[in-house]
Amino acid sequence: MSAHIAIENLENYMAGLGEKAVQAANILRLASPAQKEAALRAMAQAVRASAGEIIAANDKDMAAGTAKGLTGAMMDRLKLDSGRIEAIASGLEAIAALPDPVGLEEKRWTRPNGLTIAKVRVPIGVLGIIYESRPNVTADAGALCLKSGNACILRGGSESAHSSGAIYTALQAGLRAADLPEHAIQMIGTTDRAAVGHLLSGLSGCVSLIIPRGGKSLIARVQQDARVPVLAHLEGLCHTYVHKDANPDMAREIVVNAKMRRTGVCGATETLIMDEAIAASCLPAIAKELTELGCELRGDEAACALISNMNAATEDDWATEYLDAIISVKIVSGMDDALAHIARYSSAHTDAIITDNDAAAARFLADIDSAICVHNASTQYADGGEFGFGAEIGIATGRLHARGPVGAEQLTTYKYAVHGTGQTRPK
Amino acid sequence: MSAHIAIENLENYMAGLGEKAVQAANILRLASPAQKEAALRAMAQAVRASAGEIIAANDKDMAAGTAKGLTGAMMDRLKLDSGRIEAIASGLEAIAALPDPVGLEEKRWTRPNGLTIAKVRVPIGVLGIIYESRPNVTADAGALCLKSGNACILRGGSESAHSSGAIYTALQAGLRAADLPEHAIQMIGTTDRAAVGHLLSGLSGCVSLIIPRGGKSLIARVQQDARVPVLAHLEGLCHTYVHKDANPDMAREIVVNAKMRRTGVCGATETLIMDEAIAASCLPAIAKELTELGCELRGDEAACALISNMNAATEDDWATEYLDAIISVKIVSGMDDALAHIARYSSAHTDAIITDNDAAAARFLADIDSAICVHNASTQYADGGEFGFGAEIGIATGRLHARGPVGAEQLTTYKYAVHGTGQTRPK
Repeated sequence: MSAHIAIENLENYMAGLGEKAVQAANILRLASPAQKEAALRAMAQAVRASAGEIIAANDKDMAAGTAKGLTGAMMDRLKLDSGRIEAIASGLEAIAALPDPVGLEEKRWTRPNGLTIAKVRVPIGVLGIIYESRPNVTADAGALCLKSGNACILRGGSESAHSSGAIYTALQAGLRAADLPEHAIQMIGTTDRAAVGHLLSGLSGCVSLIIPRGGKSLIARVQQDARVPVLAHLEGLCHTYVHKDANPDMAREIVVNAKMRRTGVCGATETLIMDEAIAASCLPAIAKELTELGCELRGDEAACALISNMNAATEDDWATEYLDAIISVKIVSGMDDALAHIARYSSAHTDAIITDNDAAAARFLADIDSAICVHNASTQYADGGEFGFGAEIGIATGRLHARGPVGAEQLTTYKYAVHGTGQTRPK
Repeated sequence: MSAHIAIENLENYMAGLGEKAVQAANILRLASPAQKEAALRAMAQAVRASAGEIIAANDKDMAAGTAKGLTGAMMDRLKLDSGRIEAIASGLEAIAALPDPVGLEEKRWTRPNGLTIAKVRVPIGVLGIIYESRPNVTADAGALCLKSGNACILRGGSESAHSSGAIYTALQAGLRAADLPEHAIQMIGTTDRAAVGHLLSGLSGCVSLIIPRGGKSLIARVQQDARVPVLAHLEGLCHTYVHKDANPDMAREIVVNAKMRRTGVCGATETLIMDEAIAASCLPAIAKELTELGCELRGDEAACALISNMNAATEDDWATEYLDAIISVKIVSGMDDALAHIARYSSAHTDAIITDNDAAAARFLADIDSAICVHNASTQYADGGEFGFGAEIGIATGRLHARGPVGAEQLTTYKYAVHGTGQTRPK
């Protein structure tokens, strides 16, 4: 396919993608684990074999990006080189090697009348994936959808259209090699933004779920406009609460890691909350190490009184996901205060407590209503790979279906298989 | 509360319900199993104690229903007597006695770095329940939401407003007796239909899920207009497929039960599919018994050729949920044909195969993508009580979150509790 094609009638074109995706989904959901694994391994080989074409395509995107004046960060996300292409190929192989979630029997029980009921995982159907200009997402998302038996319709950012198109060609080769339908993974063949609106409508019931990957404005638009369920997180405003019974060294190591390991990830801690009982003894060492690593400190009055280079935090700071080397610091009177602050400002992504007091940890983990609640570890563990899911398509902070890291298993749903021996239901 | 109150400003009123529900949900999700159980038992006592008031309220609804010319079926659903009031009370006690799903640890695993991750069930939050004029749903729905730790906003049919209001008063008494917030269960205090629209909007993010209970037009409107996820089934167009290797007696007993035990329930079989290889030997006995029970038969050409009182089915018949003593009959050449028919016409609710051939059963159960797939039993087992869930708020045929019977456990979601010993994530 070409990354740019003229679409005479966008609505018909999108409807066609939906119908073909449903047809492919009906084949995919019955495909054997071995067949899907073979396709994923063939995709990895095809990516490696077409590294030259992928880099040539990427050169076009990079040249256009330079001409367009994309930021350094955007250009870095867009850039592919041989190392990144190998990472894409090995990522496909890692997904190939994951356990297949389809057909997994979660529960089985027998009723007094002899009926046996099994709860079995099955694919969702057709997923719409909307992402910004990271060409590798084309492979990651397509592969996770395939692994979980779902057909998908991909919509990547226009800046990476050539690169994504070249990767997509390799995915198609893998599907063909394993005799799976090429419409199992479709890519919207136009950069027309109106195509996204059609996809978000669900294409007349063809699309069961939308997963957006990208910045806050993309996610917000998708959540606002989608007429089908969305798995996503709008932001990751994560807190680490250092309780009065924390081990000071552990607290310092965890807070520094939670903030500074990578500042641009959704699991990065944005606000440090600290009990006033240990603030004087514990905060200076944390502040010193954060400052040495280039982190700006913004604190409430009590924090500013303790740390000379602490700037005054405003109300906005408590509600801001910095995604940068900035941390807000709030001193609280104790657990009640900490829980209230988190309940008010958390984005329900990941929140942590550091304490050696098991009762305090149990209360925090029970009370905090976020997708991931952590005791004595870094919030940066909020990641499907770190959870052992092998790969993730993102992290969800909604209430329904899946919360936290979304891996292959979370991209499935279930049905009940009821086994009888002739039972009829009494009146 | 009064069942009819003047609402000066509906939007503000509904927003207030949403805010109070969220506040109540934050208390409810931490309520102990014992406290919720105590509230449910107190509700049952209050229902019994106020039987006189409930019947007086019901008399008003019945009189208005008569004046309005409601159908006999609607009047029957509306009617409360001492037996039905006792059933409501004992239903509340049955829900009280169910295992509490909140806090249930579904999985726990330890990562190579020592992090232990537990997947724990938690309430969803605030549920909106929209139902037609069955006053008992007020108690069933309120109780299941409470059991699962969710606050709810109820909207019952206007014809049952007085009856539902009187039952609601008893629920409130139960909440007070157990020291739970009265806003845990709220009822929309106006019969203004625009209130439903506000509820379907999600009340500015306060409502996480809508569950409609009622006829197809209600469900269709809710699915069309809701801006938050909906758990429901639009219809139950269920099939029973009699495979060539079926035991003829078992087939007859199951088909007759699946169609005629109750014709108005969503799990009733609407279409009988039969392999041509056994149609001549098997269909006459089934047709005879169905006819004796007053069931109309509508078949394809092959079925009509076998059964003298078989009327000709039209294309519409295959797509119709009769909810009545009518069955459509299709003769197929074999499994492929049967699967294709079901894939085309099934509402993804419940579909069954009757066969003594285990390989055929396994293929059917794997291939059919409905919420409930049944082997050698009646489709009328599609019911939360029959599944062992104790009670259900309905059956869902969507793809996400919950499929099949929706009981207390299906009204929960999950979070991850991560337990560390100071782990920081490597670069």
